[in-house]
Amino acid sequence: MTFTQQLAAAWQHNDSLLCVGLDPDPAKFPAHLKGRDDAILEFCKNIVDATADLVCSFKPQIAYFAARRAEDQLEALIAHIHEQHPGVPVILDAKRGDIGSTAEQYAVEAFARFQADAVTVNPYMGRDSVEPYLAFPDKGVILLCRTSNPGGSDLQFLETNGEKLYEHVARLAAEKWNSTGQIGLVVGATFPAEIARVRQIVGDMPLLVPGIGAQGGDVEATVKAGRTAAGSGLMINSSRAILYAGHGEDYAEAARRAALATRAEINQYR
Amino acid sequence: MTFTQQLAAAWQHNDSLLCVGLDPDPAKFPAHLKGRDDAILEFCKNIVDATADLVCSFKPQIAYFAARRAEDQLEALIAHIHEQHPGVPVILDAKRGDIGSTAEQYAVEAFARFQADAVTVNPYMGRDSVEPYLAFPDKGVILLCRTSNPGGSDLQFLETNGEKLYEHVARLAAEKWNSTGQIGLVVGATFPAEIARVRQIVGDMPLLVPGIGAQGGDVEATVKAGRTAAGSGLMINSSRAILYAGHGEDYAEAARRAALATRAEINQYR
Repeated sequence: MTFTQQLAAAWQHNDSLLCVGLDPDPAKFPAHLKGRDDAILEFCKNIVDATADLVCSFKPQIAYFAARRAEDQLEALIAHIHEQHPGVPVILDAKRGDIGSTAEQYAVEAFARFQADAVTVNPYMGRDSVEPYLAFPDKGVILLCRTSNPGGSDLQFLETNGEKLYEHVARLAAEKWNSTGQIGLVVGATFPAEIARVRQIVGDMPLLVPGIGAQGGDVEATVKAGRTAAGSGLMINSSRAILYAGHGEDYAEAARRAALATRAEINQYR
Repeated sequence: MTFTQQLAAAWQHNDSLLCVGLDPDPAKFPAHLKGRDDAILEFCKNIVDATADLVCSFKPQIAYFAARRAEDQLEALIAHIHEQHPGVPVILDAKRGDIGSTAEQYAVEAFARFQADAVTVNPYMGRDSVEPYLAFPDKGVILLCRTSNPGGSDLQFLETNGEKLYEHVARLAAEKWNSTGQIGLVVGATFPAEIARVRQIVGDMPLLVPGIGAQGGDVEATVKAGRTAAGSGLMINSSRAILYAGHGEDYAEAARRAALATRAEINQYR
């Protein structure tokens, strides 16, 4: 099954557009996990097991593992998701971007080593920096388009040929780079008007939308701007607001309650 | 000593603008190394030891290590460079780029975990995606500006406000983001006219120039376009043409001969 098919099945099966971002920061872990060698894995597994029936995807952020020499825990986490929750796709949030020969190595990292179903990629280096990921026909490639951070506007909002750079990226992705149907885009929830603009350009292409929760994006505006005619097409990511909903031994239950509430809020506007 | 100072000292001490890129591909290793668990480390250490007095920097490309679960060998390699060849700065070629809170994690990865002296960063997400690296005052940040690959033009060559996107990135870097003097830029050797344009915009800022050797960039044109008034300012990267200059047990000597020849060719035009 391809990433796109897996995602469509998860949207339907779990009745959810919610993507839970796995950004494990040990400083925020509940006290009983601190000091454990496998704290990152244990924390994330419990979050995953408590929310897997409520999400359309999980999105581990590799920097949080790499900063702590914990790539082995990331491998084990993704293996755990595939074994225990088959059908829930895993997006490796890595934002890679390099020349073709190096991109081939990054594609091996994401898809062969970590067994991710999709990976986030930066479009700044152009088409041949994206193609090596597309050589894995079952995998997805989610390109940065309009990011949710304050500096996102520095380049992405520049005018070029009568449109903004992020619109041009959306157009390149939809009209030139996506002949195999593997591409999706990152569009931040902090800019609903721009989600709507991207949706207009790219048709039913899946959009990964970070920025609700801790970053302050509005759920109603996001869903209304980004949903497809079928009421899906979105992976609305929440990381910190779910991972750190609770601070005690019951953090996984707290995460489940937060995920249930977020899914319900999203579904209200589909 | 800051990265910039270290680099200036290495330019002078080794009379070299050559940066050797460490992109270890086990499929290209000499036969006697194949099958060794530490083949990547062993290969790279021998290249480093054979060329350290001929270069201004080493640039390990992290994807080649990550694709093979060999981050430990990358750590050991950089530690080896610092111990055996103090004064030669190490640029971790990672092309990271993410929102501030995640960029903090990537900065820890590059500078605390791997002990790199500088890291390559993608500018697409703007200023706050760059700042966390600058919080390490001794470290360098080399931003992608004009890349050497064919797709580099897809975005970087777009016209925006009367200049091309790569020129705008050079201007942002030089005029707005570099108050601490830690920033350099990546400008591909495949486009000498654009190296000259960037040099005009950024003054004496260090430029990392990949693309000579296997990628076909012209050394004379590169040096003439990019050198500063003092005849330096450049880290001209060669990876494959040096690493794989030889294919037998004498690969390190072959690499040294290639590095000597490349340094001499560069110095001819400084």
